[in-house]
Amino acid sequence: MNATGRNFGSDNVTPASPEVIEAIVAANAGSLHSYGDDPYTTRLNELASTLFETEVTVFPVTTGTAANALALATLTPQYGAVYCHENAHIMTDECGAPEFFTGGAKVIGLPGADGKIVPAQLDAPLRFAADMGVHHVRPATLSLTQSTEWGTVYTPTEVGALAEAAHARGLSVHVDGARVANAIAHLGCSPAEITWKAGVDMLCLGATKNGAMAAEAVICFDRARATEFELRRKRAGHLWSKMRFLSAQLVAYLDGGLWLRNARHANAMAARLAAGLAALPGVRLVQAVEANELFVAMPDSVIESLFADGFEFYRWATPAGATGPVVRLVTAYCTTDADVDALVVAARRHADGEPAPSEGRGRHPHPC
Amino acid sequence: MNATGRNFGSDNVTPASPEVIEAIVAANAGSLHSYGDDPYTTRLNELASTLFETEVTVFPVTTGTAANALALATLTPQYGAVYCHENAHIMTDECGAPEFFTGGAKVIGLPGADGKIVPAQLDAPLRFAADMGVHHVRPATLSLTQSTEWGTVYTPTEVGALAEAAHARGLSVHVDGARVANAIAHLGCSPAEITWKAGVDMLCLGATKNGAMAAEAVICFDRARATEFELRRKRAGHLWSKMRFLSAQLVAYLDGGLWLRNARHANAMAARLAAGLAALPGVRLVQAVEANELFVAMPDSVIESLFADGFEFYRWATPAGATGPVVRLVTAYCTTDADVDALVVAARRHADGEPAPSEGRGRHPHPC
Amino acid sequence: MNATGRNFGSDNVTPASPEVIEAIVAANAGSLHSYGDDPYTTRLNELASTLFETEVTVFPVTTGTAANALALATLTPQYGAVYCHENAHIMTDECGAPEFFTGGAKVIGLPGADGKIVPAQLDAPLRFAADMGVHHVRPATLSLTQSTEWGTVYTPTEVGALAEAAHARGLSVHVDGARVANAIAHLGCSPAEITWKAGVDMLCLGATKNGAMAAEAVICFDRARATEFELRRKRAGHLWSKMRFLSAQLVAYLDGGLWLRNARHANAMAARLAAGLAALPGVRLVQAVEANELFVAMPDSVIESLFADGFEFYRWATPAGATGPVVRLVTAYCTTDADVDALVVAARRHADGEPAPSEGRGRHPHPC
Amino acid sequence: MNATGRNFGSDNVTPASPEVIEAIVAANAGSLHSYGDDPYTTRLNELASTLFETEVTVFPVTTGTAANALALATLTPQYGAVYCHENAHIMTDECGAPEFFTGGAKVIGLPGADGKIVPAQLDAPLRFAADMGVHHVRPATLSLTQSTEWGTVYTPTEVGALAEAAHARGLSVHVDGARVANAIAHLGCSPAEITWKAGVDMLCLGATKNGAMAAEAVICFDRARATEFELRRKRAGHLWSKMRFLSAQLVAYLDGGLWLRNARHANAMAARLAAGLAALPGVRLVQAVEANELFVAMPDSVIESLFADGFEFYRWATPAGATGPVVRLVTAYCTTDADVDALVVAARRHADGEPAPSEGRGRHPHPC
Repeated sequence: MNATGRNFGSDNVTPASPEVIEAIVAANAGSLHSYGDDPYTTRLNELASTLFETEVTVFPVTTGTAANALALATLTPQYGAVYCHENAHIMTDECGAPEFFTGGAKVIGLPGADGKIVPAQLDAPLRFAADMGVHHVRPATLSLTQSTEWGTVYTPTEVGALAEAAHARGLSVHVDGARVANAIAHLGCSPAEITWKAGVDMLCLGATKNGAMAAEAVICFDRARATEFELRRKRAGHLWSKMRFLSAQLVAYLDGGLWLRNARHANAMAARLAAGLAALPGVRLVQAVEANELFVAMPDSVIESLFADGFEFYRWATPAGATGPVVRLVTAYCTTDADVDALVVAARRHADGEPAPSEGRGRHPHPC
Repeated sequence: MNATGRNFGSDNVTPASPEVIEAIVAANAGSLHSYGDDPYTTRLNELASTLFETEVTVFPVTTGTAANALALATLTPQYGAVYCHENAHIMTDECGAPEFFTGGAKVIGLPGADGKIVPAQLDAPLRFAADMGVHHVRPATLSLTQSTEWGTVYTPTEVGALAEAAHARGLSVHVDGARVANAIAHLGCSPAEITWKAGVDMLCLGATKNGAMAAEAVICFDRARATEFELRRKRAGHLWSKMRFLSAQLVAYLDGGLWLRNARHANAMAARLAAGLAALPGVRLVQAVEANELFVAMPDSVIESLFADGFEFYRWATPAGATGPVVRLVTAYCTTDADVDALVVAARRHADGEPAPSEGRGRHPHPC
Repeated sequence: MNATGRNFGSDNVTPASPEVIEAIVAANAGSLHSYGDDPYTTRLNELASTLFETEVTVFPVTTGTAANALALATLTPQYGAVYCHENAHIMTDECGAPEFFTGGAKVIGLPGADGKIVPAQLDAPLRFAADMGVHHVRPATLSLTQSTEWGTVYTPTEVGALAEAAHARGLSVHVDGARVANAIAHLGCSPAEITWKAGVDMLCLGATKNGAMAAEAVICFDRARATEFELRRKRAGHLWSKMRFLSAQLVAYLDGGLWLRNARHANAMAARLAAGLAALPGVRLVQAVEANELFVAMPDSVIESLFADGFEFYRWATPAGATGPVVRLVTAYCTTDADVDALVVAARRHADGEPAPSEGRGRHPHPC
Repeated sequence: MNATGRNFGSDNVTPASPEVIEAIVAANAGSLHSYGDDPYTTRLNELASTLFETEVTVFPVTTGTAANALALATLTPQYGAVYCHENAHIMTDECGAPEFFTGGAKVIGLPGADGKIVPAQLDAPLRFAADMGVHHVRPATLSLTQSTEWGTVYTPTEVGALAEAAHARGLSVHVDGARVANAIAHLGCSPAEITWKAGVDMLCLGATKNGAMAAEAVICFDRARATEFELRRKRAGHLWSKMRFLSAQLVAYLDGGLWLRNARHANAMAARLAAGLAALPGVRLVQAVEANELFVAMPDSVIESLFADGFEFYRWATPAGATGPVVRLVTAYCTTDADVDALVVAARRHADGEPAPSEGRGRHPHPC
């Protein structure tokens, strides 16, 4: 039985759900047409259309970076601008993939509490762009992260207001949904409500962090974009020849609600961890815990002691309004009660005054 | 038990070798650091270094297009030229991936019998480029396909002469080795002899067509290129978070010689098929069968009758010097004697004069 | 008084027409809004709309490479293909500018006698692209060179047939008109007849080689493309702040028919040179002389003797069907009868058997 | 006699210095080799090497955007990061040219008082980049604007400290010197002191705003970069065929100190304007006036009244620490005492309480 053990570094340190691996094994039989002309890919499109209550085109790819960059390149011309939160993954974590795939569009970060943008923040940069005419990149796309980089969740109303503001100015709306399942689990809404019904044009539906092996589904709500997306995917080397193995993962993920069960579990573990840590002296949550990420202020001695115990997680930037060292902890679909409780017990012991270790142990350099 | 059945369209219509799937299943346990900081990736680098008899850096990616385009982009500046055979996959089949990844380098095709370039063919285009100065893209890279697009194999001597000619003019040497295992199986040489010992700077070692699920290994013989490659891979969305699942496939592929066993089998099936077909009236091999692809001239009535029987393969361009309709047939690691014999029997029946069907059935549009 | 003297290397070795320089001097007065919001640019658009008998948008840029690359990038998506003659300037002489500006589209060269493409040549490559689906770049643009790289001229009927074939397959039509004035002078048709009336979507109207200092006008017949073009031009650094100086050159060029007078003169000088040379023993025109470029087969001894005399021109590739060494000679708007006659006299002397000099003098490496 | 009249919008609304136009006229004689193989370009390299007291390679181009983007692309890999002030022209005014030319590098803006960056500001972003490894673009280049976007000037000591900090981390140093002449005029130092002696690797020496028609000189202090720059320039369509006309402008600009005389005059006019305006009630300079740009807080009624009088300038963002409406005023090499005094007189009249006009007149949308 898998568990994340002492590793709270990211939900991508996990293995895959048994259902996903079983689907891969089951797909490994006989010859099939390549490049997506196979029953798994057909089934995936049916499942996604049912789930989203509308006809969608699904493009499976392997990584969240590929999903985001391909979607943004389809929505944004070379001379365009993408607006996103200044801490968005597409801004800081993808080694310039959006710039590369678009052919040099500009990704413009906007500040915002709790990892969220609000519609009014679009006013100044879009007015500036309009004033500048051809001298400035052309506003093209609004990119939202759901759940956000700070573990919070946009409501359908919030997404709707943003999408309305964006569309009114001719911008398309992209959602980086690496953890959108966790957001939907938190909201209790339907996938349709938080996406196309709220005005989202293209969704990158993450699966890898929530139980897949390596699979993300770009959900194209507007079929007119599909052909261009297909060509861009091939050209970027993201079209698997043995596509069945990519689609099969996503079929297993969507069929029977695995995506939602996994996300609910991860969220529940985050809530359990939040409750346990918030009760400790000197420890404080610096963001609402709405999905499966926690941002926690705790004394440096506690952090270093936990590292010395072998727990893994990342030190994080201290958000505006908070003080002291902050860490990020991530739970996953396979985190167990025991995993959580072990961390809480250890943190309590250290918070209660046990002396800190003389030095911390090294941590893996990049979160995700 | 898998077999390719009646599908001779490509070696990418196959499932994965059982060993590869077992390796994926085995890797699905517990938390592991992401992005390649895992024991599978470490093991892969060791195995490849042993296999190639030199310290190499291995970059696993998912598709051959990604492997080629990333390698070419690492070797070729934006303002550079890549020289390759005019029928090379990078020229015709990758939707401009090399141009995209390099930032707009030019891929220049050279003619050549049997899918091969010879050193003298570099003379004219490189002299032209030199005469043109800054007005022409700068020659940067020679790309060879091994085995070639016409199912033939470059010998170590041939590669060595090409690499020498390339290096003498300041060009790097890339090998698109989507089917390099089949070439090595044919040559009976060591992997080192046909690559770095012959002057190859970067090799894309294919595995997907020869038993992997979705895995290609870019073998970097020059460590100085490795950092740039890493950044380009991430930026292109080709760095898996759960890298273990990509590396584990390649470990299974290299460890214990699966790659060579699979390739030998595919080649043997191609030889068996060649022997069977060549004996038929009106049927003729238009290229030497050295790896696992056959190019066969046969009467149109035979082709259409085979399609009507449910066999799958592609009509192909007729090579210089040949006449009449030509088809490509590909065998794979899991093609069986029975698969081959069924095709030969059917072809014999049709070649012996059975009337052709009134109309052919549709074929899947793209070969691979 | 300017003359080209002994330099027949290219029409870009010339100075500018006095009218153009006078226009620059006249424009050098007082403050004016920058970036094209000036009366010269307004006037240019009016003049061009009158000349082409339809409302056009004109984008002045500085070089032919910029004009072509910006036009092609506006017409061709990143994942697209541009088809052109294999000797086209955009293929061989622009250091990959089309690939750069488009973001990595593929430029595909087609063979063709006399530097011309005929509609039937599109059949095979477009069928191939269709068969290949997403694996091949998407056909997007047909680019014609007028006058051609071999000094010949497409007739309105020829352009019309090509444009019809292109449009029928969804391709746009671009004309590299670095020497289009010479073509129109030869044809005696109207600018409209040989461009939009024949189906041309975007024309790069050259002026630099025909009397301007540094000015080319991209003529956009479809206003829907204009905004994108504008953004691309700025982004490429091709939007002059003091635009008046660029527009003023083109106003001088178009107003009063300077463009046509200059082109007629250059063509007349080419005809005079052709007549003179064709009469010499061992000398032969290998292409019809329809504009201002001559391709002439002559004995090596004559070539070297002319170089020794200080004449400048380029050795050229021998076209299919011809034999022996071939040179290119270019006349210009300011070439004089005396310039031409001096060359003919010298060539006659050498052709009549005067011994060749012991060695030729160096020539400037790039033609243009 | 030229004057800027009532247009204080930008120094690019000006004509060219008579010396520059005379040089163009003088260069318009006879045939010359194209593409820079001409005596004007040779002379330019000599002049610049003398001026900078070291052997430099000079690449003339037509616009500041081209100069900056080409220089940044030569210094920055596709997967790199350029750090600059958040108000830098390369960030806001070049329609993504740096992203385009580099192939998608990221331009990262840093805050900083007075339009200046200080070395300590590099710490956090470079530490972040290091922590992120391959997930973040690789720091490559520091770009400084001299004089700054806020009309201030970096001293040699300031540049030296920044360059030292940059080089220590492996970054190259680029200077956008669209108004570097004004900076040198203010500092009274030598061109060498404020550039390569302080650690600058590549300088874009502006001339267009300071008296040229359309000419900027990229000064390459490191010859090893020169070949790459040349290829990139050609590929971007920025290599003039009749280069003499571009080089001749820069020869006129550098020879005999025109650049410095012009810049001193523009600065003196700015100082005169600053003195005049600062004495008015309710009017305040919000930045030190060190070069030829003024940033002035003034009552809205005064601004609108000046617009009604026909004066042209731009409303600007209010810098941190200031309040109320702010405008930018720019003087130029050809601004006269009378031009300045007319503006001051009008502003005094309005500031002294004359009622504001009912509505302002439209202003040209983009500053420069």
